[in-house]
Amino acid sequence: MHMHIAGIIAEYNPFHNGHLYQLNTLRQTLRPDLILSVMSGDFLQRGEPALVSKWERTRMALQAGIDLVIELPYVFAVGKADVFARGAVSILDRLGATHLAFGSEIGRIEPFFQTLSLIENNKARYDQTLKEALHEGISYPNAHAAAYRLLSSAAAGEFVDLTQPNNSLGFHYIEAIHDRKSSMIPLTIRRQESGHSDRTFANDAPIASARSIRSYLLGGRSPANLQNKLPPYVYSSLERRNRFGGLTEWETFFPFLKYKLLSSTAEQLSLIYEMEEGIEHRLLSRIGSADSFNGFIAAVKTKRYTWARLQRLSVHVLTNTLKSEARQPAAAGEVPYLRLLGMSRKGQNYLAAIRKDLQVPLIAKIRKHRDPLLDLDIRAAKLYDFLSGNGQPPLSYSSETSHAPIRYDEKNGRFIGAGG
Amino acid sequence: MHMHIAGIIAEYNPFHNGHLYQLNTLRQTLRPDLILSVMSGDFLQRGEPALVSKWERTRMALQAGIDLVIELPYVFAVGKADVFARGAVSILDRLGATHLAFGSEIGRIEPFFQTLSLIENNKARYDQTLKEALHEGISYPNAHAAAYRLLSSAAAGEFVDLTQPNNSLGFHYIEAIHDRKSSMIPLTIRRQESGHSDRTFANDAPIASARSIRSYLLGGRSPANLQNKLPPYVYSSLERRNRFGGLTEWETFFPFLKYKLLSSTAEQLSLIYEMEEGIEHRLLSRIGSADSFNGFIAAVKTKRYTWARLQRLSVHVLTNTLKSEARQPAAAGEVPYLRLLGMSRKGQNYLAAIRKDLQVPLIAKIRKHRDPLLDLDIRAAKLYDFLSGNGQPPLSYSSETSHAPIRYDEKNGRFIGAGG
Repeated sequence: MHMHIAGIIAEYNPFHNGHLYQLNTLRQTLRPDLILSVMSGDFLQRGEPALVSKWERTRMALQAGIDLVIELPYVFAVGKADVFARGAVSILDRLGATHLAFGSEIGRIEPFFQTLSLIENNKARYDQTLKEALHEGISYPNAHAAAYRLLSSAAAGEFVDLTQPNNSLGFHYIEAIHDRKSSMIPLTIRRQESGHSDRTFANDAPIASARSIRSYLLGGRSPANLQNKLPPYVYSSLERRNRFGGLTEWETFFPFLKYKLLSSTAEQLSLIYEMEEGIEHRLLSRIGSADSFNGFIAAVKTKRYTWARLQRLSVHVLTNTLKSEARQPAAAGEVPYLRLLGMSRKGQNYLAAIRKDLQVPLIAKIRKHRDPLLDLDIRAAKLYDFLSGNGQPPLSYSSETSHAPIRYDEKNGRFIGAGG
Repeated sequence: MHMHIAGIIAEYNPFHNGHLYQLNTLRQTLRPDLILSVMSGDFLQRGEPALVSKWERTRMALQAGIDLVIELPYVFAVGKADVFARGAVSILDRLGATHLAFGSEIGRIEPFFQTLSLIENNKARYDQTLKEALHEGISYPNAHAAAYRLLSSAAAGEFVDLTQPNNSLGFHYIEAIHDRKSSMIPLTIRRQESGHSDRTFANDAPIASARSIRSYLLGGRSPANLQNKLPPYVYSSLERRNRFGGLTEWETFFPFLKYKLLSSTAEQLSLIYEMEEGIEHRLLSRIGSADSFNGFIAAVKTKRYTWARLQRLSVHVLTNTLKSEARQPAAAGEVPYLRLLGMSRKGQNYLAAIRKDLQVPLIAKIRKHRDPLLDLDIRAAKLYDFLSGNGQPPLSYSSETSHAPIRYDEKNGRFIGAGG
């Protein structure tokens, strides 16, 4: 039996028609026997809290036809692109994914391989240019872009424009697959909307970026205009959440970040993961007069620190994630457990079949497992639930440590048991 | 010239007619040339935030006729009775107070001296009984009371009932004066209301306890019924604060305490000042389901831990006060600086006269001074201002580090300059 097991790395913040298009294209082209998703928890790669909790987003994914949803642990989910990619690829690899499908602006896979070869074959020169660019005080992404531009402009071949966010993330997936000598086959599907970072919002288009959907919702506007851009189960979830207590964004959490900074010494802050080059002093000097999260980040921002990097750092401050907890596992790039958030019947059968061959524990109920990395996931989830008001009625969830995976019966479109 | 310089140790939370009675009695009996007050900052001895900020309470004190208001540093202000007393007495001593006046239930000074002698002369036996009582798992205050009961019941003389809160605090003042061989003369004035801890509230009585006034206000009732119990300047201050954003109480701060506990490991909490005997594990096991401060403390409470002790511990958690910062100065019982909060003209002249002889720095503007203990005061004040909404309009204060002492012209009853 040779199965096609497709893996997808996602945030689903929120799940929208673009994701659905990607799934349908994948089904038509690969005809996979099963689709797995590695999904970020309550905090995301750009250093933002999710609009709705990971449980709510797991429901969306299951209803859209994903068979297994596994959580990307906090350290990887709120990591730089390469850390994020390595963690996610390690999960798909452990789970036996035969293919990795990702969206990109370029939409063809061959240029990714050529780009990888180009950089691999010119590693020394690339690293040297990178180092010089960083020395000039510009940000990591810009330094990488400069080093890459220098290489690609002088070489023959078709390369990927890595300044495009999905191309860049995809490249890190390809690199992670290559580095771990995985046999996973990467596939890419061209993204349909006008760029991930497009904040404009065309009312008649059936596909809009997650970011534009978030801006629209967080601008306080009614979700009603989004009905044509979202599957109905996503729409009703967001609509309900919007009615009870609102969708979660950084501003919701800002008073707690401010409290945390005002109550900490520079020395304590220097222990926080990703707190480098004495930036804790800059945070402390700006927080007193800040009265919004966006105002705070704008006041802290420099050429060297991207907005996303400062947001991730702020998430680590909020969740009290220490260097001593996160550095080593992030560098290792290997996820030591598989945290199951949800499964279809087909997904459940698949797990039953492969379970005995898994090299790392599969975690359905947290109570039985203890892992330092998992402690970070639990802490982040508890804080998210408490600070976003998920811990309170009317939207009450069982606590993170006793929450069972969500089970979905795809045959009759129903959730099963207490999880539903 | 032999001056009478009277010292008072106070919280003024809020200042009320009972305090006014104490001041008037002191004026009539001692005829002091000057009255100094050592006042707690924004957090108080029973582990509670003050109803209104220390600046607001300083104004009340100046208008009531106090000539100098000096802040009792956080470590002493939020300390056990003996730590509180030693810190406060050290300030009065440094400032040249010739007398210390305090309210007590017994109202005569002689029994305090007899009580001190009794305990001093039977130290070994007292300590042994205390140790045994503590071993049985009862609280410190109850263990002290048991040890003292055993001594006093067997001895001849007139002793103080130390289970009465003001008698007990007064005893610690006497002890602190004795221990530092100070020449300060203690005076006591009988308290007029029916006990500090009396929660009942007689509407026609001109004197009510600070606690009963607080309960009344925090119960959400209009301050109007308190007009006969408060000087007019206190009434208008509380009334105004009540109108804009409310008076401060623990429940206002509880979400931040909960956040702090949910985001901390047991190991980090064990570094917090006064976190003893592994109680951090108990706090962590109770916080998840707590939805109010009082509910939380009730859930944590044991025979061994008094309510006040748990409240103080909670304040230390909230303000992130570490053993490494607070233990040594609290044990030393000596205040290394005099932080000036406010002064009358007479107070200002007095300071000018004694300034050159002061053994410790007098701090008017914080900018110029740095002291690890002062850092704790600043942190506590900034957190209080931010969490209670004092940092926001409409009640905006200049930030703690640039706030000038409040100056009051007692001749024409006006505040002077920017401080007013």
